[in-house]
Amino acid sequence: MIRKGRLFTPGPTQLLPTAQLAMAAATMHHRTAEFRALYTRVLADLKTFVGTKNDVVMFTASGTGAMESAVSNLTSPGDKVLVVTAGKFGERWEGLAKAYGCEVESIRAAYGHTVTPQQVREKLKPEHRVLYMQGTESSTGVRHDVEGMARVLRGSHTLLVVDAITGLGTTHFDVDGWGIDVIIGGSQKSVMIPPGLAYSAVSDHAWQRMETAKNPRYYFDLRKERKNGAKGESAYTPSTALVAALAAALDYVREQGGGDLADGRELLINNAETAAAMTRAAAKALGLKLFSVDSPGAALTAIAPPAGVDSSDIVKAFRNHFGAVIANGQGEMKGQLFRIAHLGYYDYLDTIAAIGALEQVLAEMGQRVELGAGLKAAQEVYAQSSEQVAVAR
Amino acid sequence: MIRKGRLFTPGPTQLLPTAQLAMAAATMHHRTAEFRALYTRVLADLKTFVGTKNDVVMFTASGTGAMESAVSNLTSPGDKVLVVTAGKFGERWEGLAKAYGCEVESIRAAYGHTVTPQQVREKLKPEHRVLYMQGTESSTGVRHDVEGMARVLRGSHTLLVVDAITGLGTTHFDVDGWGIDVIIGGSQKSVMIPPGLAYSAVSDHAWQRMETAKNPRYYFDLRKERKNGAKGESAYTPSTALVAALAAALDYVREQGGGDLADGRELLINNAETAAAMTRAAAKALGLKLFSVDSPGAALTAIAPPAGVDSSDIVKAFRNHFGAVIANGQGEMKGQLFRIAHLGYYDYLDTIAAIGALEQVLAEMGQRVELGAGLKAAQEVYAQSSEQVAVAR
Repeated sequence: MIRKGRLFTPGPTQLLPTAQLAMAAATMHHRTAEFRALYTRVLADLKTFVGTKNDVVMFTASGTGAMESAVSNLTSPGDKVLVVTAGKFGERWEGLAKAYGCEVESIRAAYGHTVTPQQVREKLKPEHRVLYMQGTESSTGVRHDVEGMARVLRGSHTLLVVDAITGLGTTHFDVDGWGIDVIIGGSQKSVMIPPGLAYSAVSDHAWQRMETAKNPRYYFDLRKERKNGAKGESAYTPSTALVAALAAALDYVREQGGGDLADGRELLINNAETAAAMTRAAAKALGLKLFSVDSPGAALTAIAPPAGVDSSDIVKAFRNHFGAVIANGQGEMKGQLFRIAHLGYYDYLDTIAAIGALEQVLAEMGQRVELGAGLKAAQEVYAQSSEQVAVAR
Repeated sequence: MIRKGRLFTPGPTQLLPTAQLAMAAATMHHRTAEFRALYTRVLADLKTFVGTKNDVVMFTASGTGAMESAVSNLTSPGDKVLVVTAGKFGERWEGLAKAYGCEVESIRAAYGHTVTPQQVREKLKPEHRVLYMQGTESSTGVRHDVEGMARVLRGSHTLLVVDAITGLGTTHFDVDGWGIDVIIGGSQKSVMIPPGLAYSAVSDHAWQRMETAKNPRYYFDLRKERKNGAKGESAYTPSTALVAALAAALDYVREQGGGDLADGRELLINNAETAAAMTRAAAKALGLKLFSVDSPGAALTAIAPPAGVDSSDIVKAFRNHFGAVIANGQGEMKGQLFRIAHLGYYDYLDTIAAIGALEQVLAEMGQRVELGAGLKAAQEVYAQSSEQVAVAR
């Protein structure tokens, strides 16, 4: 059969067609009133999307660029920092903090698990300048307890920095209420456009810290971007096409929320939650083990392959048979899990289609799979969730 | 959940993204060497796609325009013509022929059924100038026996005109071998682009008939288009953007055929056949009755709603719940069947998704449906068909 190229990966994710069109049509110069108006609107919309009163800055970079800015702008060489790590992206915080000369103390959980606030409470010392963590760990699908960590940090001088690159749009964050000092998002995630833009919402505490932080920064200088952003500009040449795409995507989210962008974000989160619940139910019905049992997030579902099967073969079969791309495990986890994304532009039909393809792939690999069993379980979850919606109305 | 706009209708069908891009990018003027090269290539590719040595002409019009040309160019007022009719599109032939003053003799089958070659043999008289029929009747999903009809007509002076608007790319036609005098296609069908172009392959017999046919024609003048087409032009301003899209779509079909457009067309037909077989199996497993039992085509599957259910409600629920558009019955058949398309750009995941949505819709309507049952049946059909492919290799 025809094989359409489809992304079920936790970034890049499926693109929003109206955003693709806006991207293709954008021809503006970035030092013009036209672009300033667009950029100003996008920064304001991102504040609403993130759900904060804090200023938002944007970089033309992938998410790691914004992560780097949260290290280089907030620390000085020799600073002690805490890192919550339970996967490849937690390890990225460790690598970044070390690259900038920080003394890193890690609070670690095994892949597939999460760190408890209690563990942080036990480790936290007044000299810890920053706690770095993920909202959701994209390499394992785990959702961390950001609210719990924030509670532990309350009253301390330790800044809370959350990589929410796959968390935003899939997880509820009360950024200002909990006191998240820096929260980071990326364009190729729940906002449904290609990679190339990263954004951060930064608290007053964090802006103050930058006054004394000594680490070098130039392109990723948050204060410079904030100053330019206030004029509707970026410090360096921005990816104008992606900014246009992002504006269109945020318009779509607002539309989904009946004209309210914050409501649209909540619907987007519920959408990912429903798709994730459908996928988890399907995996269980097929006798597959979820890679994350205690705290699975809605950004993606990580699933362990059947005993004796390398997940690389499942990923390969998905692509070869159906042109659909799912994600393998990263690093040492390669071969041991596969990941199906739910963040952003996925609907019921996509979710059913991915589960149907998974069953077919496993059956073709000779696994004992009852065709339709996972689908049925997913459909039942959907039926229940839509009944709840009907009742709520 | 998010509801993506999806078309499961037998035209317009899902669009091919590369064709959409080509359409958006096309800015050429139609009286230029650039356009002439493109138009020449498209006409040549259409010959291969149709599978004929006959000249192909194209109109900027929907399929009905090309149907009209096959009446106005081939008949004179008072001519006796035969029409094979078993649905709304058969009835369109009757309407067209009458509008041009022909004396119409219809060979009719009930909706959902087909006419046999034997019936035609019994009716055919030497004075019948043309037999008009469909390859597939899009209003009921029925595939007519074009080969059988052609055999009946062999040696007669009755021209065979086949509306293959949903037949091309879903049905095997040996145009020259069987002796189809005019075969008609449209852009919004298996060639995966929006409506607005129609094309016809015309035999020598038909060209000769035009010498004496007296009915008036101007915009739909086949000979004028043939003459202009030989120079890489159309007689009147063509839809340049759609021509660019069609070129890209035919390139895609060729690519699918490993560089051979005719092979690509065969794969496209097999693709529709597989999707149709999956959908029929699903319908049966769900206890639904196929609207066409004796001769279901691969362009679409027409399914009767459960007893006591108006198919309009199923169509509405599909759109409301999932943003997906399936087709209702047309005319008197409205409410009595719904149609799910397979022609063109549909893959395994689309097919599974549509079936999953159908189950969910029926369950939500309170029908006794075993969730997953249709899906499983469809998956089993797919597994068998892909095993056959594996064995054939």
